[in-house]
Formats: sequence, structure tokens, C-alpha cells
Amino acid sequence: MRIVETIETKRDGGALSPEAIEHFIAGYARNEIPDYQAAALLMAILLQGMTDDEIQALTLAMVRSGETLDLSDVAEIIVDKHSTGGVGDKVSLVALPAVAAAGLPVGKMSGRGLGFSGGTLDKLESIPGYRVDLSVTEFKDQLRQIGLVLTGQSANLAPADGKLYALRDVTGTVPSLPLIVSSIMSKKIAAGADAIVLDVKVGTGAFMHTLDEAVALARAMVQVGRSVDRRVAAHISDMNQPLGRAVGNSLEVIEAIEALSGEGPGDLVSHSLRIAGELLYMGGLVEGLEAGMQRAGAMIESGAALQKLRQLVVAQGGDVRYVDEPSRFLPAEIVETVVASDGGYLTGMEAAEIGMAVVALGGGREKKGAPIDHRVGVVMHAKVGDEVAADQPLFTVHANYEAGKRAAVARIQAALRFSDDPVPSLPLFYDRIA
Amino acid sequence: MRIVETIETKRDGGALSPEAIEHFIAGYARNEIPDYQAAALLMAILLQGMTDDEIQALTLAMVRSGETLDLSDVAEIIVDKHSTGGVGDKVSLVALPAVAAAGLPVGKMSGRGLGFSGGTLDKLESIPGYRVDLSVTEFKDQLRQIGLVLTGQSANLAPADGKLYALRDVTGTVPSLPLIVSSIMSKKIAAGADAIVLDVKVGTGAFMHTLDEAVALARAMVQVGRSVDRRVAAHISDMNQPLGRAVGNSLEVIEAIEALSGEGPGDLVSHSLRIAGELLYMGGLVEGLEAGMQRAGAMIESGAALQKLRQLVVAQGGDVRYVDEPSRFLPAEIVETVVASDGGYLTGMEAAEIGMAVVALGGGREKKGAPIDHRVGVVMHAKVGDEVAADQPLFTVHANYEAGKRAAVARIQAALRFSDDPVPSLPLFYDRIA
Repeated sequence: MRIVETIETKRDGGALSPEAIEHFIAGYARNEIPDYQAAALLMAILLQGMTDDEIQALTLAMVRSGETLDLSDVAEIIVDKHSTGGVGDKVSLVALPAVAAAGLPVGKMSGRGLGFSGGTLDKLESIPGYRVDLSVTEFKDQLRQIGLVLTGQSANLAPADGKLYALRDVTGTVPSLPLIVSSIMSKKIAAGADAIVLDVKVGTGAFMHTLDEAVALARAMVQVGRSVDRRVAAHISDMNQPLGRAVGNSLEVIEAIEALSGEGPGDLVSHSLRIAGELLYMGGLVEGLEAGMQRAGAMIESGAALQKLRQLVVAQGGDVRYVDEPSRFLPAEIVETVVASDGGYLTGMEAAEIGMAVVALGGGREKKGAPIDHRVGVVMHAKVGDEVAADQPLFTVHANYEAGKRAAVARIQAALRFSDDPVPSLPLFYDRIA
Repeated sequence: MRIVETIETKRDGGALSPEAIEHFIAGYARNEIPDYQAAALLMAILLQGMTDDEIQALTLAMVRSGETLDLSDVAEIIVDKHSTGGVGDKVSLVALPAVAAAGLPVGKMSGRGLGFSGGTLDKLESIPGYRVDLSVTEFKDQLRQIGLVLTGQSANLAPADGKLYALRDVTGTVPSLPLIVSSIMSKKIAAGADAIVLDVKVGTGAFMHTLDEAVALARAMVQVGRSVDRRVAAHISDMNQPLGRAVGNSLEVIEAIEALSGEGPGDLVSHSLRIAGELLYMGGLVEGLEAGMQRAGAMIESGAALQKLRQLVVAQGGDVRYVDEPSRFLPAEIVETVVASDGGYLTGMEAAEIGMAVVALGGGREKKGAPIDHRVGVVMHAKVGDEVAADQPLFTVHANYEAGKRAAVARIQAALRFSDDPVPSLPLFYDRIA
């Protein structure tokens, strides 16, 4: 009955001891604690919160539920990066090749998209042949050989998190700061990185809708990482509009290749350089964030970053001709551009709605495990703050059937807000927490 | 996924529609909604509360989950009574025979004891032969013939409550006002009573520890009963010490018989008359509570109430010689009286501890379904506010083995508080809510 006492303590607003948390996580992972008791405790945690010490104990208990990757035989320092998820976020595809090209190894196990938020694995699978199921040995070998890996979770990292997440998903207990922090950080810590850079999104296309929520999440994650001697920095970034212009898997890969070729949209390039710069700084290759951004920028200018992406694709079995000639990506059946009916200023957009419009086209999934159509998506031609003239292109829908295209056009049109008065453009970043 | 939306709405502090509540209760009763989703919702209800409308909808959904007893062919008006549970509470055994003797039919389905709180069924089973498993037909026939039934739950009343209660018990979600109210009132409404009198206990031997909690519970129960056109009155009564003097099954039956014979302890008699008076008033037999109390008192004085208890015992197969000669009840092996070591005033007691001392002697149960020893218990010789002289008897333990007796003596001694300064005695009632 010890788990009932744990539930009662949290229900009444008390703090749980590390032993009580370990008992819960270990018992749940071993199927000794039933789902219904875990569900009651998760709801109590969501509504009563957790102290920093409890979040740390919860994260470490989840790390202990599975394997821990030891990468110390691969390199002296390994960096990792995590985004809390958003719309059009292809930063990993641009920043990580730049970091690896600068000589800092990056081995990242990414996830798949769910709901409005895309996933790096789905994007990479747009490239025919690209494997995301490397074994731990393959992971380490490739990290040694080319200094860059982008694959799915191969080791049995923090299995308690997978089981808990599935339960949270069906019990209304996803949006809880302690549960989000421990879910993200347990996997990052188990994956063996020495330094972790977090990209915490806030806005209409993010899971966090207010700056206060995002800052609280970032602080808690930095705190947990610090408590286990990881170097951690978090950037709070804007997600009130898609990052870059493309939303949809192959469309985003194409945009990332353009960015690495010096032709990407300014916001995507700036965003990626900042994340890459922070990784170089946290990894000890440069003396500060600014120096890191410059180094990363140099890697893109010289073509070394694009070359690193080529190496990555080759190493993981992808057809590298798609990187060299992005026009090889199979286009969607229907490509239709919508223009502005009147002149005015784009004042805002519901970014999650744009993400869901792409999901509805088949470019994402509402349920885990559903298949994905890599060709479909949308390309936005205006950012918030832009003045648009009548008949100027607003966005282009890439669809594979007529009714889907019509629905996407209507949904995206409804997600855009215009005004006759100018509004400032949106910042890329709000804060850095380290 | 509709249940997830229901969980999310309550998690975020919203009110649930009657349809959402019906969907939850009906789905859970039919095993279509899994325990883990129900557990998350129960915890959200506990922490976020429910409006009066939600509590009403929850109660009625639970009523609809099973049978509803129709007693309209038995009598014009049927009254029922419920106590929220306490220590030494044998009021039903005194009040209900008085009410029935006055001509108002009482058909009550009682429960068993759990934890420190005793149960009427266990007490009645002290009488050899007494049956508590009457069928619905037997229930109705007996109600017609002698106007009094005291049995276990025979019909399939509010089965969702039984399933929910088992889940609440293992998920830390028992102490929730909306869940307590709907649990009690769904069974009372399904049992077919037209008027319901609630005895809501508050104090160290009750589930409610503060007057505010007890009043809130009483108001909510009255409100729900009213909303379905039941006449309901609640009395908030003191449970900071055992009611009467005896705690333990056969000891309490003996005390109830004494009370019906005009020889009971004053607090038990006064308490029982008030509940009986309210039942007579709610049942329309008298014009007010005072008149009801007088009528009930007259039933005891005339011996008609005791005669009604005899009829009850005979009708349900019990050996009525135990009512006529209570000395027939088999005594415990060891009967030891503890005296005061010093003189002073009894200023307070942990009534739940006294209840648990009796449970430990075998007179109650910590888990549902455990067997009970009807002979054991304790008789208190002093009430809070009494002056006790050195060597004056404080309490008598009735035990069946020496170590049990010693443990009970120590536990009860530790539960008593003394002072050199006088304190007032405790009131019997704090409030009436109707």
C-alpha cells in the first residue's frame, strides 16, 4: 500500500521523498504498480506540482529504469540538442551538420512527429534509403568516423518514460511541467551527452503558450541537468509562426539543404546559427556564444556544413543525390499558391493550425505509428510583420488530392490575421537560460 | 477519446456537462472506460471540486447504473436514515424501532463496519440467527407486515458506486466531497425512500474532522436529495467521543436494548430521539421536530419500541431470547476495568483510536470481508467534561486474549486526555440543515 501513501502525499500538496519516487518509477516500469494508481499520481503531480528536488529525483529514477549510453570511448565531449517541438522546425538539419563540421561530435537520437509538431526522423526519411534504426555499435562507429549521427532511439533509454508517456497521453496528464522536464531530461541524460542545448518554443505553434511557462520549463530543465553535472543552456524561441517557410517533410529537407547552401530563409539561418553556436560554446570549442555563432556561420559559408550533411546521408544509407539535387524530391500531385485578396499587414497566425493542416494532408500523424506522406505540406510566403499587396502570394499548398488541398487552403486562410496598420515582426528569441 | 476531454475539462477546473458525467459513469460501470482513466478523473474531481449541478448529475448517473427500488406499493411514504460513520454509533438500533412503532415504516439497507467505524449489519449479527440477506420480496413483505426492516443491500443498487469505491480506495481518492455525496445519496435514492435523515458526524472519531467540512457535506447531500424531490434533513452531530458507552458489536446491541428499555446512557437516548423525531417529522407523522422527539420518546416509554425490535429480530430469524435477556450474549474471555490513577477532568479523547483498539481486538475489520469477533469491545465509564476521582473506573476492555487486552488498554489510555481544570461537556449536535 506504499504507493497509496505516495499518492495521498502528493494529493495533499506534500513533497515526495527520492525513495518514494524511485519506488513509483521502478515499480511502474516493472509492471508492479498498476496503471490506475500511476494515473492518479500523475494527475496529482500535474495539479499539485513538484519541487526542484522532486523533479531531479523523478528524472534520475527514469534514467535508472533503463540503459545509459557511455560515449566516453568515442570522444572527450559529446553534445546533444533538444527542441520542445514546433511547426517547420528543421533546425537540427542545419545546426548539427555545422557543429559537426567544426569538429564537435554530435550524436542525436531524435523522435517522430505527433500532432501539429513535426519530427526530425520523419523529415530525414524523405531521403530514400535513409536509415533511422542504427544499432548502438553503428551509432558509436559513425560518431567516431564522421562525427555526426541522426537516428532513432536505439538503446533502451529511460523505458519508464515511454510507458508513462503512453499513460499520460490517455489520461489528460501531458501538460505538466515536472512530467515534461523529467521525460525530456531523462532521455538526454541516459543518451550520454555531456552538454545539452535546449530549444524551448513558445507561442501559437508550441506546447507552451506563454513566456512564463516556457521560462519555467527551461529553468527546470537546466536545473536538472546541472544537478547531474551536465552543461545545459536553454534558448526560449518564438513559435508564433512556422520557422523558415516550409512545413512538411521533404519540403523542410529541401529548405534545410538551401540553408546549408547559403540560400535559406533568414530566420531559419539565424535561428540555426544560434543553436549551433551554443552547442560549440557548451562543447568547449569556442569561448562564447558569439564566437560559436561565427564559427558555425563559417562552416556554412565554406560549404563544410553541407558536406557534413552529405556524409551523414551516405553513412546512414540515404541517396545522396537528393542532397545534391533537391529537385529530385518527388513533388506532390497538386501545388497551388494562394494570393492575398487585399493589401495589408500580416499581424499573426495560428501556427498549430498550419501544422494540423499539414497533418490533415497526410504529412503528419494524429496517432503514434500512423504512416506519413513525405511530399505534402505548405510553404508560407509571408512572415508576421510583412506588408502584403493584393494578389501577392501568401502560401503554397502541396497536396495529393483536391479535397485535401481545399481543406488545407481554408484552414490556413482562417489561421492568418491581417490589419491595415503595421505591426512589428516577431523576435526569434526571447531569452537564454543557463 | 471523449473521456480524455472530460478528464481535461475537470483537470482545468471546468464544469462537466450532465452528458459527460453520464458517459463516464455508464461507460465505467460497463467496463468500457478503463480504471486508469477513471482514476485520473477521480483525482481531478478531488482536487478541482464539482458544482452542485455536477454533483447532482453524478449522483443520478450512479442511480441509473443499477436498479431502483419502488416501494410505493408498500406504503405511502418510506423513510430512510444514514450515518456517515463513527464509534459506538448504535442509533439505528434505538431510533428506527421507535419510528416504526409510531407507525412510520422504515426499510433500511445497512452496511458493514470498516476501519474505526462500526456497521449496523455486524452489530445485528451478534444476535444468533439474525439474517441480513433478505431478498427484495422478503424486504417488501416484512416492511408491510411489521413496518421495520434492517438488512444488507439486496437489490443491485447503484453498482457504479461499488466499482468506483473500490478504485477510490486504492488511488487516494476517498476524501472528496462530491464523491462522498454521490456515493451516499445514489444508494439512498435508488433504495426508494421518500424522506432521508442524515446523521453527519464530525470530530476525532468521524471521517470529517472540522465543522466546516461536515456542514459542506451535509448541505451538498441535502441539495442533491432536494433536486430529486426527496425530503432531506441533516443533523451535524459530535463524534469526538464514542456515542453512548459501548464500542463493540454485542456490547452495543446490549446497550441499545437497555436504551429501548429506558435504561440507556443519556447521550445515546437523546441522540436517538432526535434522529427518530426528525424521521417522524420528515415522514409527515408529526408537525415538527420537537413533536417527533416527543412521539419517539413515548414509544420508548410505553415499551412499544422495544416490542418493535423484538418483532424485527423474530421476523429476520434471530433468537429473540437475546433481546429479552441480554445476559445471554456470550461474554469475552477477559473483562478488565481500568481505573484512573489520579483525579482530574476528562478533557478529550481520540475516538478513532478507541475504534481502532476494538478493531485490533477483532471487533472490526481493516479490510473488507474480514471476519469479526462479536464479543470483544470496550465500555467507557466517563465522558468528556466528567470529573473522575483517583481509582474511579475509566473503561472496561472485553478481550479474548491477554496480549490483545494489554494492547487495547495501552491504546485507549493513550487516547484519553486529562486536566486539573474543568472543561465543558461536548454538545450532541452542532447544526440542523434542511
